[in-house]
Amino acid sequence: MSRKARLAARPLTHGQRLDRLAMVAVKVGANIQPGQQLIMTANVESLPLVRRITDHAYGAGASLVTTLFSDEQTVLSRFRHGQDAAFESATGWLFEGMANALNDGAARLAICGDNPKLLDAVDPEKVGRVNSARAKAYKPVSDAITQFRTNWNIVSYATTGWAKAVFPDLHPKTAQAKLFDAIFKASRVDGDDPIAAWKAHNAELAKRRDWLNAKNFHSLRYYGPGTDLTVGLADGHAWCGGAATSQSGITCNANIPTEEVFTTPHAFRVDGYVTSTKPLNHAGSLLQGIQVRFEGGRIVSASALKGDHVLQKMIGTDDGSCRLGEVALVPHSSPISQSGILFLETLYDENAASHIALGQSYRKAFRNWKGLVQDDFVARGANQSNIHVDWMIGSGEIDVDGIHADGTIEPVMRKGEWAQ
Amino acid sequence: MSRKARLAARPLTHGQRLDRLAMVAVKVGANIQPGQQLIMTANVESLPLVRRITDHAYGAGASLVTTLFSDEQTVLSRFRHGQDAAFESATGWLFEGMANALNDGAARLAICGDNPKLLDAVDPEKVGRVNSARAKAYKPVSDAITQFRTNWNIVSYATTGWAKAVFPDLHPKTAQAKLFDAIFKASRVDGDDPIAAWKAHNAELAKRRDWLNAKNFHSLRYYGPGTDLTVGLADGHAWCGGAATSQSGITCNANIPTEEVFTTPHAFRVDGYVTSTKPLNHAGSLLQGIQVRFEGGRIVSASALKGDHVLQKMIGTDDGSCRLGEVALVPHSSPISQSGILFLETLYDENAASHIALGQSYRKAFRNWKGLVQDDFVARGANQSNIHVDWMIGSGEIDVDGIHADGTIEPVMRKGEWAQ
Repeated sequence: MSRKARLAARPLTHGQRLDRLAMVAVKVGANIQPGQQLIMTANVESLPLVRRITDHAYGAGASLVTTLFSDEQTVLSRFRHGQDAAFESATGWLFEGMANALNDGAARLAICGDNPKLLDAVDPEKVGRVNSARAKAYKPVSDAITQFRTNWNIVSYATTGWAKAVFPDLHPKTAQAKLFDAIFKASRVDGDDPIAAWKAHNAELAKRRDWLNAKNFHSLRYYGPGTDLTVGLADGHAWCGGAATSQSGITCNANIPTEEVFTTPHAFRVDGYVTSTKPLNHAGSLLQGIQVRFEGGRIVSASALKGDHVLQKMIGTDDGSCRLGEVALVPHSSPISQSGILFLETLYDENAASHIALGQSYRKAFRNWKGLVQDDFVARGANQSNIHVDWMIGSGEIDVDGIHADGTIEPVMRKGEWAQ
Repeated sequence: MSRKARLAARPLTHGQRLDRLAMVAVKVGANIQPGQQLIMTANVESLPLVRRITDHAYGAGASLVTTLFSDEQTVLSRFRHGQDAAFESATGWLFEGMANALNDGAARLAICGDNPKLLDAVDPEKVGRVNSARAKAYKPVSDAITQFRTNWNIVSYATTGWAKAVFPDLHPKTAQAKLFDAIFKASRVDGDDPIAAWKAHNAELAKRRDWLNAKNFHSLRYYGPGTDLTVGLADGHAWCGGAATSQSGITCNANIPTEEVFTTPHAFRVDGYVTSTKPLNHAGSLLQGIQVRFEGGRIVSASALKGDHVLQKMIGTDDGSCRLGEVALVPHSSPISQSGILFLETLYDENAASHIALGQSYRKAFRNWKGLVQDDFVARGANQSNIHVDWMIGSGEIDVDGIHADGTIEPVMRKGEWAQ
């Protein structure tokens, strides 16, 4: 073995892999352009990744990188020591400022990885009030994102709290190392050329997306244990997946990792019942065993074996929070699903299973979306809400049919895998 | 010795002293009111103090505590990897949001303690451009503070970088422990009852302030080695010191520690020359040996033995940055001065020596200031600028005279101490 081959075979250090993740977040994920400001949000524990992303962003020509850090202890402090007003208050002043920056062309990058069990012992009524106030105040930012006005990306960091929740029986250091391994693998940064790996992966997703767009189904029907759901697709819906181009003309990969293709359901044409196949971590609370029945697009009954109070509060946020805004297909053989890890983090778990989302629709999941005015968007069946919450309904036991406008049926997935 | 006496005699732990500092920052410093939001800024390293302040603030009824963290490594990253646009950009979107929140009644708390030598190796021209862009963008926030629209406080945390700069010859851990000792002592939190200690200290400062207000001097003259400066005082100037009440009606101690009484000089009646007596840490650059000559209130020549480029850039920021906005008296025997430590941090060093500030005047340093409209403020001699930079001109060798409108003279300080 030559010296070069030995060097090449040497496993990458943690720092090298973290640096590659940062590079991919900047170049493939947000795709920061020269002169752009970058607004990043991150848990303080993810500082090592924040610093590397900052280096790469300035290297790519960012004009200014601003990171808004969160700290789990101070989140808990609010619930422990806060008085009544503390649960109704939100930082509207900050979110309005952020939205102004995004609408002026700043890029957005979020590092996720909060402890999914952080709020387990907190009064769910307080959690519901806090989430609801925050969702309302955050609307200007979520509008900029769902309308895809600028380039953005979500990437993740294995915080100790998250790692402990995923691997409760392992030593904390071992748990964190194992979660990092899974993140680096799923984010495709552990091979020789992460940029090339993303190029190939984006091409695969584009192929699947183009097939679905050519079919232009009228509805999808999901069926399997606990589920028989027919989801009408919005008029002029477009399937998306992998890299996409923002209104500002910058092509980015919003999620790293990503395995899904997704589109816009019709907010008034969803009927049947559906059962969640994985737990959902929603703003620090874990929801399990969600069962929902839809009639005419609207949830008419809903329950969760765990986190029912948070589910009810979430569904009751506003008029659109009890209707679907997104539907996504992910094969059961996706690498994240095959890892066998339940990540308790939507960014990962939604890429391990087909899923639906309650709440706001994405502007870009329509044909000719850049010319769409708000009224067109709604008339075609898009949903409007302050929330957008994905939850997983796919598994190796779920079949999906595509139904054409004339009633003819084509298999889309069988036992969780692409049927053709 | 009884058990109780032994317990009482036991020295406080680091955690207990840090908790007392947090309590004083919340109760005496910012004096957070029920239902108020709090906006805090802090170095990520000061997280232990941030968490304790957050606990106390929620305990005092804060509706929401938001901390904007800074990180020295990412500040350096900008200078290391940033391209030209990186040095002209600022977070106007964030500062406008902050100003909106402060004007709507949020309280403000800053934890200082950045490494004063952080930018020593950075091109001063780039540092000057960054500071200048930031000062302009920050104006809405500094307006809210200098016009005292809300309750605010600055407190400090001994970061490793700051401790190393102050005590370069000590082991880093020893340096940090020694700096914490000095902070706890100067902030009056190491005794049995910090709240009572601050009450007594505020009463002392009020006595001195009231004496100066009763004298209503027309000018002050500072003289000693390298200094012979006559500073006219603004028409209707008021001396301030210790606790004061904001426009929103909340009494707070803006600086912890504080030893100064201060007022508003007349922006057009400053003549003579003055030499700095301590180094000045300005936005990460150390300025030493500043010498300045004033004519008719305006700087006509200025130089610094170290940091001259940063000084010139600072003075040239705008029309008001070459005139005085504040003049303050601090006895040479002040506890901070007597500690013998050069803190390289204005919050401390300005409380070890009489000082002057270039730039913006404080609204509250006028009689009947709450009724003052902008035109009155300027007509009385207040200065206007995007900057406010204090620098130290007092020592044990400086005398200060008070000069009445009729030319009679009274001694105010002799050899750095109160003359009466």
